[in-house]
Amino acid sequence: MTSPYENVVSLRWTDNQIVMIDQRVLPMSVEYVSADSADTVAGAITDMVIRGAPAIGCAAAYGIALEALRLQNESMEQFQRGMNVAFDVLAKSRPTAVNLFWALDRMRRTWESVDRGADQKKVAKHLLDQAHLILEEDVRINQQLGAHGAELLRGGYRVMTHCNAGALATAGYGTALGVIRAAVSAGKSISVIASETRPFLQGARLTAWEMVQENIPVTLITDNMAGFMMHEGEVDAVVVGADRVSANGDVANKIGTYMIAVLAKCHNIPFYVACPISTIDLSIEKGSDIEIEERSADEVRGFRENHWAAVGVSIRNPSFDVTPVELVTGLITEKGVVSNNELKKGTLRQFVLD
Amino acid sequence: MTSPYENVVSLRWTDNQIVMIDQRVLPMSVEYVSADSADTVAGAITDMVIRGAPAIGCAAAYGIALEALRLQNESMEQFQRGMNVAFDVLAKSRPTAVNLFWALDRMRRTWESVDRGADQKKVAKHLLDQAHLILEEDVRINQQLGAHGAELLRGGYRVMTHCNAGALATAGYGTALGVIRAAVSAGKSISVIASETRPFLQGARLTAWEMVQENIPVTLITDNMAGFMMHEGEVDAVVVGADRVSANGDVANKIGTYMIAVLAKCHNIPFYVACPISTIDLSIEKGSDIEIEERSADEVRGFRENHWAAVGVSIRNPSFDVTPVELVTGLITEKGVVSNNELKKGTLRQFVLD
Repeated sequence: MTSPYENVVSLRWTDNQIVMIDQRVLPMSVEYVSADSADTVAGAITDMVIRGAPAIGCAAAYGIALEALRLQNESMEQFQRGMNVAFDVLAKSRPTAVNLFWALDRMRRTWESVDRGADQKKVAKHLLDQAHLILEEDVRINQQLGAHGAELLRGGYRVMTHCNAGALATAGYGTALGVIRAAVSAGKSISVIASETRPFLQGARLTAWEMVQENIPVTLITDNMAGFMMHEGEVDAVVVGADRVSANGDVANKIGTYMIAVLAKCHNIPFYVACPISTIDLSIEKGSDIEIEERSADEVRGFRENHWAAVGVSIRNPSFDVTPVELVTGLITEKGVVSNNELKKGTLRQFVLD
Repeated sequence: MTSPYENVVSLRWTDNQIVMIDQRVLPMSVEYVSADSADTVAGAITDMVIRGAPAIGCAAAYGIALEALRLQNESMEQFQRGMNVAFDVLAKSRPTAVNLFWALDRMRRTWESVDRGADQKKVAKHLLDQAHLILEEDVRINQQLGAHGAELLRGGYRVMTHCNAGALATAGYGTALGVIRAAVSAGKSISVIASETRPFLQGARLTAWEMVQENIPVTLITDNMAGFMMHEGEVDAVVVGADRVSANGDVANKIGTYMIAVLAKCHNIPFYVACPISTIDLSIEKGSDIEIEERSADEVRGFRENHWAAVGVSIRNPSFDVTPVELVTGLITEKGVVSNNELKKGTLRQFVLD
């Protein structure tokens, strides 16, 4: 059986490079960007050719593998120097999504685990195998967390989601949209309300596109309609992804998530966060310690080349916000769902380490 | 002394027609649309060449006057038939802003008050004089409510506003932005946070432009940043306009207002609504009885000709929402400020009629 989500592919290894669907121009245009070095992968992450925490992690892993392949005929000294630069460049590509750092750590450990006597070609092969493994694991993990999350959704639910936590944000299947895919696969009738997610419009462009591809009913709203829809009784649950979860259960995710979580609380609507364990950063105690990326003002001035904001206005562009654990009804992971009660008891660390 | 807000003019009577600045293309382009009949004015209102409750009211009044001038050489029977059609066409131009119906009622009463023996030319002159009066009154009323509202703002306040309730939304000076103008005129240092207000982008295009014109510091955010800004402690008060206030104090205003009001409540930030008495509709008991206009899906698909939403997605486009009186810290009118306590006691009707 072919999985329907295979239509929507964020990145794949092809002909000794990674090929990424260009998420800056979807769905107006379906274009691909290839990368054959750490630098080009880092640029694609910074420019949001590829985005979404798990997809960024996969891309970074391939960035390391590509650099190793590129340098495998250099001297060991040059190889090591080049690889260290590659790790640095990729680590600086975007600051908030922890999966980037998680993937780079895993690639570094892979490198360090290779026999000291191994030559550069052997190291490169190990790193490429590891990148493939990370990608394959990500799809499997999303399917697992999707199955756990699907149990929380009843037939007929109208599920609001924000940004895109779908196949495009991962190696495939998606986190928040993975939950929806799993519920639909289980025979439940689910419809999606996608907030457009200014300024990059991931909801209007990417989530809507993914859902349309799979014939899952999807309604697009502007971000400022979230409260209206909830007040009208048109939202049964919210499911979003995450870019980083701190050890206490606070959730950094796309700007606007916090606002939706507050509104959900005020309207007694469950608010779920779906993410792999790799998004939980036990090294950070609480959400306020998570670095929030502030991106270019030009993104808010308009969309792409089309600028509409008055000239001379100041602009803020925080790309993420932090939703405190109090507002999180449940955290959906591949190991199961952690309830708000458990999160508030501070059991997340133990859950991750078990 | 010339008023700085005179730079920003929504509509003016010139050469026997009304000339409106085209708010669909501001600030990218400063263009004007002329109207010389009720039909063309109604079209300009429907298409949002002119928008904002008080400005719509003024435009509708001129629409009636223009039609009377256009028909003044017809027979009395044809004049009367034509005028009745004009009232109908204008009444159907947009449903939510009550100032439209208020202005049409006033114009009809003016018509009815003219001597029965008066000829069509005399009726037309009376109607034009009344339209001029409505416009002049609107500016004066805004200055009065601005002065009342300014007392609520302390120096240094960072005031969030939504949509555009400025000079462009009125005959001049503005309601919410009138409050800010009055506070600045009183020597207070005020800065503005403007939410961009999808889908028509009144915040990014119109509010930002008005504030830049007058050197009032203004920061643009996307609508989904409202919660983040409040949580960061960067908002001291919210001031918005209104399209219709029901007798109990519920407020219909641009979509997103309700969301901001909920967020303001959760962050203990005062939430003020600034509007003329003419926006208060005593014929409607509560907000849920106010008709909410649902506009074309194309507005949400993108901005103007630039469509980015995935093809095949369903779209909602309610143009307004209702903020319940519980969330309104105070209603700022030309007769003074009605506090939340007074509103909740049900004294608004008496306040209006006194």
